[in-house]
Order: sequence, then structure tokens, then C-alpha cells
Amino acid sequence: MARVNADRLVRRIETLGDIGRRDDGLLSRVALTVEDREARNQLVEWMEALDLEVEIDGIGNIFGTWGRSRGPGSEPVMIGSHIDTVVDAGIYDGAYGVLAGLEIIEALRATGASPGRPITVAAFTNEEGIRYAPDMMGSVVHVGGLSLEAALQTRGTDDSLLGDELERIGYRGPMEPGAIRPYAFLELHVEQGPVLEHRRLPVAAVDGVQGISWQKITIEGESNHAGTTPMRLRRDAGLAASRITAFLPALAERTGPATVATAGRLELEPNVVNVVPGRAVMTVDLRDPDEGRISAAEDRLTKHLAELEAGLDVRIRTEQLVRFRPVRFDPGLVGRIEAAARERGHAPCRLTSGAGHDAQMMARVAPSAMIFVPSRGGVSHSPDEYTAPEALAAGADVLLDVVSELAEAR
Amino acid sequence: MARVNADRLVRRIETLGDIGRRDDGLLSRVALTVEDREARNQLVEWMEALDLEVEIDGIGNIFGTWGRSRGPGSEPVMIGSHIDTVVDAGIYDGAYGVLAGLEIIEALRATGASPGRPITVAAFTNEEGIRYAPDMMGSVVHVGGLSLEAALQTRGTDDSLLGDELERIGYRGPMEPGAIRPYAFLELHVEQGPVLEHRRLPVAAVDGVQGISWQKITIEGESNHAGTTPMRLRRDAGLAASRITAFLPALAERTGPATVATAGRLELEPNVVNVVPGRAVMTVDLRDPDEGRISAAEDRLTKHLAELEAGLDVRIRTEQLVRFRPVRFDPGLVGRIEAAARERGHAPCRLTSGAGHDAQMMARVAPSAMIFVPSRGGVSHSPDEYTAPEALAAGADVLLDVVSELAEAR
Repeated sequence: MARVNADRLVRRIETLGDIGRRDDGLLSRVALTVEDREARNQLVEWMEALDLEVEIDGIGNIFGTWGRSRGPGSEPVMIGSHIDTVVDAGIYDGAYGVLAGLEIIEALRATGASPGRPITVAAFTNEEGIRYAPDMMGSVVHVGGLSLEAALQTRGTDDSLLGDELERIGYRGPMEPGAIRPYAFLELHVEQGPVLEHRRLPVAAVDGVQGISWQKITIEGESNHAGTTPMRLRRDAGLAASRITAFLPALAERTGPATVATAGRLELEPNVVNVVPGRAVMTVDLRDPDEGRISAAEDRLTKHLAELEAGLDVRIRTEQLVRFRPVRFDPGLVGRIEAAARERGHAPCRLTSGAGHDAQMMARVAPSAMIFVPSRGGVSHSPDEYTAPEALAAGADVLLDVVSELAEAR
Repeated sequence: MARVNADRLVRRIETLGDIGRRDDGLLSRVALTVEDREARNQLVEWMEALDLEVEIDGIGNIFGTWGRSRGPGSEPVMIGSHIDTVVDAGIYDGAYGVLAGLEIIEALRATGASPGRPITVAAFTNEEGIRYAPDMMGSVVHVGGLSLEAALQTRGTDDSLLGDELERIGYRGPMEPGAIRPYAFLELHVEQGPVLEHRRLPVAAVDGVQGISWQKITIEGESNHAGTTPMRLRRDAGLAASRITAFLPALAERTGPATVATAGRLELEPNVVNVVPGRAVMTVDLRDPDEGRISAAEDRLTKHLAELEAGLDVRIRTEQLVRFRPVRFDPGLVGRIEAAARERGHAPCRLTSGAGHDAQMMARVAPSAMIFVPSRGGVSHSPDEYTAPEALAAGADVLLDVVSELAEAR
């Protein structure tokens, strides 16, 4: 049984993780910055050292292929993720999935195997979406969900034009987006949640991505003196907000075992110790792997808001910020991952991703699935992001087995 | 029956209210600024025009006396409040109580009466306390609750030294604070709450000032991804904060009919739509006219926090920001105010002040009480602060009756 080289994998992750590290020790490698360019150069250098065929498309997605990826029957097994990061990021999110692809090719090569199908390692542009919206941009352009022209015209939070920045860093490639259509797509990623750690498991098969509903809720009451306004004469927007937040655990419990509901943001006005809040603005994040349950949760929330409006004499309005339907990964591929994990001696574990990933876009054009490894403390998007080398290797070994089976590497 | 001249009273309030008004139309006359000096100059000018004896003490309190306020049996009936304001203030808070004093002297003079006891109009320094803490500073120095030396050494929010600023505006007077000990103290003020308007009454006798307890509550949980962290694995500081806020109406109801409880401030960290809040900082403002009930409410809150700590797996710590025991005004004086209001044809109404006033300090050295008139919409500390001229006159007429009775003006 072939095995990845854990040391080499970790070394590559750490090397890439030092690109974009500032003097204060924190890592920020935001899409289409000079730091992103430097990381891309490093990735291409590694791909070329492995004799992969490197191709870059019009949105800057980078593909490195072992074998010939053109012609009938030559659709590659694609392993992909991204190498851009958030601000003050960890080193695993994204990078792990790309660099594990290189490691798998190197490990397979070491066994003397050669694949019946090509194997492609992909790094998609701007997955994080913190400078240019939407996130998962490279993969959504790859599958035709967003036109290349529209993507290049995107204005950044710094008012820059994406197309200009892509030219500037030298990664506007000649290939047509979507030209490489995979036979199957696999993404290996840190969980970004606490479940695997909690269950003491090193690896999970990911069967889909939760649907997401984000609402902004604005509550208008009346600001009044906290000392002189009797309780029954108040129109307390902060109280209404608190009743919404406090309602969410019951809403989630009633909706389903996988439902999560979060009030992450809240601002009161005037936000002064001795003034009854006249206005509150908050967000509610609802997620569930099932579209019907998300809709049901939204309906229950709407009903609750109407009751609060009447009961607390406030006005409440809502705005939908984000709404994604759930994505189901390919059941056959998820089953293969589970079987491979079992072969490697791991207890079975199946998760639904709570965060968005390039794999959910690729699922529109090819059988796709993901593999998760634990995140210590469930933490990601933070310098504290950490996954132990053994878990990184365990996830990559499962991916190695699935890829070599799909690519018929013998 | 003597009557105040409502037009003259309103004119003086409006004249003073234009001192400190900026180009944008908003009024700010913060203590010991040049705007405060200009208002003090105007007040002294009016006092001198009424032939009052003007005396200024070491903390800048201004006293204008009709009659001789020294020697046995010559303790004056004192009418007082303040002429400093908050930022973006209304024109009634404080100024009404001082200028009604001038109006009462003028109205009594017009009847040809002369008082058996002197009548003193007082304007206390820095009642609002927004530049220099504590608030009610002039009156607390007057009654010996804070030494003059300590008060003069106070550093402002702008790092200025109070003593320097008092010298600069020319109002560090030669009189020893507390030299004028009143026979009785009366303060006429806008309610700053909605009760009188709600009951459609023009005037109330105020029997005391609520006790106040301010607590800052800091909740430490754990920040986690909102999409990937199951509900049962969360340590949601924002949820804990919401449960505290939502608990307050029940806490107030259980404690007593006059109890008020407010969560005016709340900040979440990191305050991001898709992150479970790891930290929340909030305030709770508890008030009641009865010390035993405030203590009981504090105890109930403490117990609730302990339950939340255990139930939600968060750490909660509290810090007492402010704690004032309730003040009871002189029952005889409150009764005289009620009787005078009845004589003037008003329905009886007795309130307990929810805000702090100079009268609560003066109550330490002399029989004291207050009279309230309505605040439109319960609003104060705002450009929208408004009381109709008829209500201003009704309150001043009741004060006139009580003062002339106490001063034996015949």
C-alpha cells in the first residue's frame, strides 16, 4: 500500500505558509496580491520539478497534470483547492488540498506506478473572496457559473479591477476556463469545525455542503432614559434582538439534528449604559444540509419575528444577504472515500461541510466529493489553525487510495 | 394668588439655550468651557438686574440671594439646579430649575411681597459630569461629599485640569463651598421620562431618587465557525448575553412595580456574521426607589449569571460601575408640594426620579424635594427635549407657592 511522505507534505505546507508572512509573524496571502504571486510561483516551481504539464486559464486557475489531459477517455482525476488566504490566516486551509495533490503524485511515482488516467492538481483563484466577491470565484468560472468577462471586471474592496491585478501578477493565462473537464474531482481540506476532534477521528468523508441562509435583521424601537422609562412603556430594540438570539437554539433543535443557527453580529444604538436601545441591527446565519429544512427554519424565524413585533411594539425588517441551496456530493465517490478510510483502519465518519468549498462548484460538472481532517479546537481562518502531521498524512493517504483507484494507477 | 410670567420664563430659557449653539443648530454647553462661561455671565447679569446678592464659591457654584443670607434664622429657601449641558442637548434640563428661581423672585416682587427668609437661586457647577467625573459635582462639593481640593484636581476627558479651567473662565470664587446652608432646597426639573405625559398631568411631586446599580458583564465563550460547529459544542458568548437581556423584564417584574432593568450596551467579538461570538461585553442598569429591592434584584441577577455559566459553558465576570443608594426627599416638603399642586387644581401625582439631580446631594444637609413637569415623548439629553410653556408655568407656579410659604413672603 502506497503511503504519502508526511514530512515532505508538512514541509511544503510550511514553506507555502511562510509566503505572505509579515514581520509581526501573521500570514495574509490575499488573492491577486504580490504575496499570492509569490505563492503561485512556488507552486508552479514544484509542479515543474515533478514534470507536470502546467496550464493556466484566463481567471488564473493553475493546473498541473501528470499524463495527457486531452482527448476522449483522458479526462483527469482532479485534486484541487486554493492557495489564497484570509487576513491573519492559518497555513492549512486550501494549501493542504493543493499540496496533498503534489504529494500523492510524488508518492505514486515512488511506487513505480503509472496512471491509466491523467491526474491533475488544481489551484483555483480567489476562493476566500475577501478582496473580490464572490468567493470560490476560480471554480465557479471554471464550471461556467460566472463568465470570465464578468469576473475580470470585478472591483475589489480596494477599488482595484480584478483583471488588472491578474495581469499585474502575471497569472492571466491563455487557457479557456473549463477546458479541462475532470473525470472526478476530490478536495482534501481541514474541517474548520470541532466534530472530528471531538470524536477523536482523523478523517471523514464529506457528503455535501450545507445550504446557507444569511439574514440581516433591523429592529426599530425607541431610545429612552433607562432610569425614567417604566418597563411597560418601553419599545426596547435590544430586548427584541436578545429574544431573537435566544430563540435560535430552540429553532435549530426543532428543525433538525444538523441545523445550525447563529447570531454572529449585533449592534445596538445608541449603545449607552443608561439608554434603552432604540435600534438594533443583527444577523442570523441558518444552515442545514437539506433545502426543505432551511426553508422551514426561515419560516419559523419569520413567524417569531412577527410575534416579537406585536409583543414588544417594535418594527422589524429583514434583508436576505446570502442564500445558497445545499449541495450533495456524488454518493459513489463518497462511498469510495468511506471504503478507503475503512481499509486504512479508520472508524467511519460522514460529515456535511458547513463552509463553502471549490468542490461544491466542481460538483456541477463532475462527480465530486471531499475528505476532511481535524482542525484543532475547530479553529480556522486564524493563526491558531492547526492539524497534526499524522492527521494530515491520514487524510492524504485516503485521498491517495481513492485517486489511484479512479486513475487506475498500477 | 401670585403667578409666574410664562413668557418671561420661556424667553430666559430660550436665551440661555442659544448660548453654546453651534452653526449646525445643536446646543452643547459642557461644564467649564467658554460656552459655560458665557451662560454664567448671562445668569449673573440677570441676577444683578434683580438686585440679588451674587456669591460664587471655590468650585464655581453661583448663588443669587434676595435678602440677607447670613446669621441665625436667616438660612435661605434655596431654589437650584444647573446650567451646564450634555453634548447636543435640550434647553430645559437644568436651566429650567435655575431660571424658574429668578422668575419666582420677580413674580413675588411684583406682588409687593417681601420674604421673611431670604430666597437664594443656585446654579451648581458640572451637574452633567460628561467632561469631569463625578456628575453633580458642584452640589456634592457644597455638601462636603467631595473635597474642594480633590474636585479642583479632577482630570477631564480632554486631560484638562478642572481647577485650571475654572480659573480660565473666571469662576473660581472666593466663598467657601457650603457656606450658605439652606433652610430648605427645592429643584424644579423636566421629568426626562414619559410618565407625566402618559398620564396627561402637568406636574408631579418627586419623593426621592431611585437607587442605581450599574454592572459591566463580560462573557467569555469560544469563537467558532458558524457553519461547522454543532449547536451542542458551542460556547456562545452572544447567546449568554441575549439570555441576560431577555431575563431583565422578568427580573424587574419580580422585584417590584417601580424596578427598571436595562441592557443598554452590548458588544460582541468578533461580531462577524458567520462566527459564533467568543466574547460579549454588556451593561445592566438596575434602579429602584428602595435599597432592599435593588439588592434583591442584584442577587437575582447574580444567581441567573451563575446558572448561565453552568448551562452554556461560558465564564462570566461582573464589575460594579456605579452604585448609589436610593435617596428619600423630605416627606413634609413633598407633602407641601402635593398640597400646592392640588390648590392649583392639578391631580395628585408623586414620582420617584430615575435620574440623578443636585437635590439628592442637597438632601444630605437640608430638607429637600423636587417638582417635575412633563418631557414630550419622555425625551431628554437631546435636541428633541421639549416641555410646553403651560407646563413650565404650572411647575413654576407650584414652586412659587411652596417657596413663598416657606419663606413667609407676605
